[in-house]
Formats: sequence, structure tokens, C-alpha cells
Amino acid sequence: MKKIHYTDVAPKAFKSPAQGVSGRVVIGKADGAENYCMRVIELAPGGLVPPHTHPWEHEQFYHSGTGQVLSGEDWIDVGPGDVAFIPADARHGIRNTGTEPMVIVCSVPPFAPEL
Amino acid sequence: MKKIHYTDVAPKAFKSPAQGVSGRVVIGKADGAENYCMRVIELAPGGLVPPHTHPWEHEQFYHSGTGQVLSGEDWIDVGPGDVAFIPADARHGIRNTGTEPMVIVCSVPPFAPEL
Repeated sequence: MKKIHYTDVAPKAFKSPAQGVSGRVVIGKADGAENYCMRVIELAPGGLVPPHTHPWEHEQFYHSGTGQVLSGEDWIDVGPGDVAFIPADARHGIRNTGTEPMVIVCSVPPFAPEL
Repeated sequence: MKKIHYTDVAPKAFKSPAQGVSGRVVIGKADGAENYCMRVIELAPGGLVPPHTHPWEHEQFYHSGTGQVLSGEDWIDVGPGDVAFIPADARHGIRNTGTEPMVIVCSVPPFAPEL
């Protein structure tokens, strides 16, 4: 069994046009996890994952902080305990509208890049 | 996109020998999620998922509350922000040793029962 705190993994900053966003692979293929990859995404206050699409889904759990997730053209409020399923090819984005970091569990299937 | 709070799903109590444990499927096959299933497991203070094994892995993220996860013969402390990967066939269990509910994101692959 592997047990870590997500902050034990060094964060990797997302490149522009993302703003104030970092990601960590906390469970992945290197651990023998062949069916899906768990990442933790962090957005600083004011941080933005701009609208984008890709041919794989996300399963998201919002751990802390507050902000909004983009669904089509609508920005929807999200906070601790919220869950989002973003199907493959669905346009999506995230923005931190609060004053604390947003910490999001955001998993991807094995055919997607881990980060 | 589906967006819910995990408490929007009715909890299903786990049968004995589990004690004080409930589960919710928050993203599953009914949503079109074919690659993995996200559940939220909740343990009341004193709650116990007894040691067991099964031929599928768990990817866990500890959202709130404090307790311990069993790894082999060792109970390891866990709390908010901790991550555990429990490989297929690894003996595991969970117990809530704190005073607040433990809320755990606990995903399974598509060939496992969703709950």
C-alpha cells in the first residue's frame, strides 16, 4: 500500500494560458495503477484553467477552496464536497473565485497523459 | 457535465461486520463513466471497515476526519489530504479514531461492484 499526503508530491506548474495552477500525480502508472490516474490540481486565488476540451473524461472531487467549473457556457459554483463528472470532449475549465487555494482531486483514464 | 454535492446522493449503509459505515456512488456507469467509479465512503466516529481483500484496487483521497487505514498488519494514521493506493488483493481496512465523520473518496475500476 502506498500512503502519502498529496503535498508530499512536488507540484508541477501548468503552462500559460493556465494561470496560478499546479498539478500533482498522486497515484499513477508508476505505482502500478493501471486503470486510472489520480491527480491533485491546485489553483491559487485568481487562478484559471482556461476552457478546453480533450478526448478523455475527468472525475473531480472538490476538497477545499471555492470557485467555479465551466460546463458548456455556464460557470457553476463549486466548493468542498462537490463532485463533477466531465465527459470526454466536453468543454470545461476551472477558476478560483475565492481567497483560499482550491484543491481538487481530478482523475483521468489510463489513455490520457497523467499530467 | 454532472455536478452534485456528495451528500445529494442517498447513503447506503454497509452491512455487518462493517460498523457505522455508509457509501455513495457519486460518479458511475449510470453517468457514462466507463473507466472507473468514484464513491464517497463515510465512517461515523468509532466506525470500522474490517480487514478484507478483493481482486481490485482502491484509489483513496481522505477529505475530512481522522482515522487509520490498515496496510498488511499495520494501522497507519490518515487525515485530510492523505492519499492511499491499495493494490488488488492487498488486505486493508479503515477505522475512524476521531470525533468527526471520516469522508473518503474511494474509487474502483469498472470490473468491481460499484458499491
